[in-house]
Amino acid sequence: MSKRIVILGGGFGGMYAARALRRKLGRKAHIELINAENYFVFQPLLPEVGAGSITPAHAVSPLRVLLKGVHVRKAVIDNVDIERRIVTVFQGIQRRPTQVPYDHLVVALGQGVDLSRMPGLDEHALRMKTLEDARRLRGHVIEQLEHAQVSQVPETKRGALTFTVVGGGFSGVETVGELKELIDRSLPYYPNIDPSEVRVILVEYAGRILGEMPERLGDYAAEHLQKHGITLKLNTGVASATGTQLVTTTGEVIDTRTIVATIGNAPLPVVRDMDLPHAHGRLKVDRTLRAEGRADVWALGDCALIPLKDDASERTDFAPPTAQFAVREAKQIANSIAATLKGKAPRPFAYTSRGALASLGAKRGVAEIFGYQFTGFIAWVLWRSYYLALLPGIATRIQVMFNWLLDILGARNLVQLRTHAQPQLRYIHYRSGDKVYEAGHRSDGFYSVISGTVEMVREDPETGEVSRRIIGPGGHFGERLILGASRRQTSVHALEDTRVLVVDREAFLMLAEGFPAFREYFRPYMEKRGVDWPPSSQN
Amino acid sequence: MSKRIVILGGGFGGMYAARALRRKLGRKAHIELINAENYFVFQPLLPEVGAGSITPAHAVSPLRVLLKGVHVRKAVIDNVDIERRIVTVFQGIQRRPTQVPYDHLVVALGQGVDLSRMPGLDEHALRMKTLEDARRLRGHVIEQLEHAQVSQVPETKRGALTFTVVGGGFSGVETVGELKELIDRSLPYYPNIDPSEVRVILVEYAGRILGEMPERLGDYAAEHLQKHGITLKLNTGVASATGTQLVTTTGEVIDTRTIVATIGNAPLPVVRDMDLPHAHGRLKVDRTLRAEGRADVWALGDCALIPLKDDASERTDFAPPTAQFAVREAKQIANSIAATLKGKAPRPFAYTSRGALASLGAKRGVAEIFGYQFTGFIAWVLWRSYYLALLPGIATRIQVMFNWLLDILGARNLVQLRTHAQPQLRYIHYRSGDKVYEAGHRSDGFYSVISGTVEMVREDPETGEVSRRIIGPGGHFGERLILGASRRQTSVHALEDTRVLVVDREAFLMLAEGFPAFREYFRPYMEKRGVDWPPSSQN
Repeated sequence: MSKRIVILGGGFGGMYAARALRRKLGRKAHIELINAENYFVFQPLLPEVGAGSITPAHAVSPLRVLLKGVHVRKAVIDNVDIERRIVTVFQGIQRRPTQVPYDHLVVALGQGVDLSRMPGLDEHALRMKTLEDARRLRGHVIEQLEHAQVSQVPETKRGALTFTVVGGGFSGVETVGELKELIDRSLPYYPNIDPSEVRVILVEYAGRILGEMPERLGDYAAEHLQKHGITLKLNTGVASATGTQLVTTTGEVIDTRTIVATIGNAPLPVVRDMDLPHAHGRLKVDRTLRAEGRADVWALGDCALIPLKDDASERTDFAPPTAQFAVREAKQIANSIAATLKGKAPRPFAYTSRGALASLGAKRGVAEIFGYQFTGFIAWVLWRSYYLALLPGIATRIQVMFNWLLDILGARNLVQLRTHAQPQLRYIHYRSGDKVYEAGHRSDGFYSVISGTVEMVREDPETGEVSRRIIGPGGHFGERLILGASRRQTSVHALEDTRVLVVDREAFLMLAEGFPAFREYFRPYMEKRGVDWPPSSQN
Repeated sequence: MSKRIVILGGGFGGMYAARALRRKLGRKAHIELINAENYFVFQPLLPEVGAGSITPAHAVSPLRVLLKGVHVRKAVIDNVDIERRIVTVFQGIQRRPTQVPYDHLVVALGQGVDLSRMPGLDEHALRMKTLEDARRLRGHVIEQLEHAQVSQVPETKRGALTFTVVGGGFSGVETVGELKELIDRSLPYYPNIDPSEVRVILVEYAGRILGEMPERLGDYAAEHLQKHGITLKLNTGVASATGTQLVTTTGEVIDTRTIVATIGNAPLPVVRDMDLPHAHGRLKVDRTLRAEGRADVWALGDCALIPLKDDASERTDFAPPTAQFAVREAKQIANSIAATLKGKAPRPFAYTSRGALASLGAKRGVAEIFGYQFTGFIAWVLWRSYYLALLPGIATRIQVMFNWLLDILGARNLVQLRTHAQPQLRYIHYRSGDKVYEAGHRSDGFYSVISGTVEMVREDPETGEVSRRIIGPGGHFGERLILGASRRQTSVHALEDTRVLVVDREAFLMLAEGFPAFREYFRPYMEKRGVDWPPSSQN
């Protein structure tokens, strides 16, 4: 019976490994790839999707079309039993688990994101990891411009027009550059926004940006970004975040409604839980990409710690987490597995970087190729050409080229496709002094205090008399919403750092219908106010 | 001071009215358009977006670019005070209401959807009204194919491969045709699905489809759809729906996980609440498009009942709700308002339909133009050309043409972009006998029974002994999820028609953290099972 080779993950590492294995082993092995999405994401183009210079559909390709002859399984991986050689998955909408046995396992799951070390960042930061993240960023930025266009409140307008990107690596630099270009090209359509009101800030913990590139190129990039109106804050980290502010480790408080975090790489839980040796959150492999201590498990890409020489110890002795290396590692893994199946010893991995490229927006870039350094327009053209060549599928390549052409010729697409709806339940952080809401505002939810304290202020519309109420943990406010009030009659602000749970009206009524305990708790309050409780079903 | 003309709605009626007014009045009037989105949606292309032959970005155009010289306000309309001539809106993320005064008001808000008359349809049907709907449909269909590809359960596979479209008007017919084509072109990539397993069904309450077109064309369309494997169920309505079944008025029960409802047009609440005369859910206007009884309010498009002659009484005496008529009505309204501003009497609206076109998928269509009838490929080409010409903006026109070309040449894009995440709280309907879940299934939520009864069956893994529990209104099940159990240990099925509220694990823990009453209610249960309650914060 032919051997079953199962690949986990459909990014650069997994997709190219599946291709290389197919080519190497033909129909002699059953090759299967498991991925949560049915498409391959071209990660390096995500900043371009985020800025709207290409549409989301053109940054992805269907795995089934890319991988003819490979069995593609769209499924979420629940766990991997290394001893029994079984991957347990949940497929699509199916709730019954499925067990997928293997003879050889290739782990190419990449890295996840963990922002939980910085209070508020996890709840309030946008990411740039998935296609959905990129799409959401674009919608969010246009929303801020739309908002600033009509806002009458100076502080709100300032927050809406301040855009912060955290992390000065490839992803952060390309995102901030593309973001600035999107904004600059959109402003002519927003006559109430003066260009001087826009602030775009890049925050980086180290003393320079693009640390993976030669210093000269990093300096060029920094200079270019600053020349185009981007503020760099180096030697600066994030201390905490709320929905309207970013606090830096240098103590600065930035009023901003847009925080894009490109930092916080962390192992995915399913990789972390594999019964295999780890180091620095990655799977330890030898130079044939075989997992330490196993003959049947292999790993590549960002989830693996891959030594480039036998006595690797320095950071530069290990393969960097780039698409370029992942593609080479994919070939290596196919060779290693093919050799192993023939009973031969695989040869060790060796690859020297051909160089690195980064786009800076505004048709400028930096590049280092075979030791030669390029900057400016020529580097940007090299960058585009390189990624165009790397894109899988002729049709996608033509479409992306065509889109780029249209983008160079015409106006940037300003359409704000709807981003994800607000969740029904959400946590919000406030810093001491922050406004929660003001009298006259639209009622947007029912608030319950988890920690901290808020003060509610009510001015009697007739007598002008002011009454105050302090609300601490366990207390709640904003109930009038449930009675059908569409406007706030009181103002609420935080007296200290405060965390609340907000429930929207529909969810509140669903909970009242679905949970007798919840319903009964609020009955006295509602009946006192003459409300039919519970209200008749919303359906 | 120049007159303020405020247009509500940025669809065909509103967008073209703003353009016509701008052209007619130049800078002599302040022209403002208020729309919830900052883009114009090309409604007739939504079925094509739903089927992936064009990307969502190409079915929309930014209003600010289309309407130079017009003030575009992205805002949600809260209410209209007809007496005081003020529109109150909420702008973007702003919670403070904004008042927009007007001298003349143009209402072009179209129609909403109300599916609440058929139990379960509102919760379980997909729609085809917005761009988001179309995008969601495409993701949903690909999800079903992915699911059927790997499903081992025949009944689940049958449900996943049965696609139902409700309503045989333009939208329903084009959707079902495009849907079938998407599926047919995708199947080669799903080797485990036999084409004979796919069922695509069109349900129509009347005795024929395309009731707005001549009978011969309707018959041709019906024949074409049937020849391409689509089942027509005429004289058939929807009685009720669940997540896995559609019950028709003829008593048939169809196992399906895809119900697309193109029916249920209903007035939007904001239009319904306007203090103006209504008829059949629409605003009553005279032949100059002026709202009955007002000198300063005008209406056009689907939200207006527009007489085509003075003594209109029959249905055909009123303007049909098509893009073609909306564009003509827009010109009329600009003329009417311009005449009124000059103190002249506006001339009455008169327009005869130039014809109608519908696409049937598989490069076939039906068309009636100036009384001439066309069918098949030529009608399809006419249909594409007509809509291409109607698309606003050269860039969009080129892109759509280019996409169509690529689509004709190459494979359909199979990428399943992520559809909206499951809501944290949701209602589910079950019919008597339906499975809720089975032992071994992934735990997907905590269930609370609102009405009806379910039976829980537990088989002891050691003794094989079977125990049963009946759970009625107010009861709940699936709590083990909260304890961290990822798999069901019991099976649950509905003993009668049952309605439940399902809360996902994260939401349940948020509620326990945010609401002391909720937390305390579940404390005895959790402590009995040795669980730390409440668990420490998820953040």
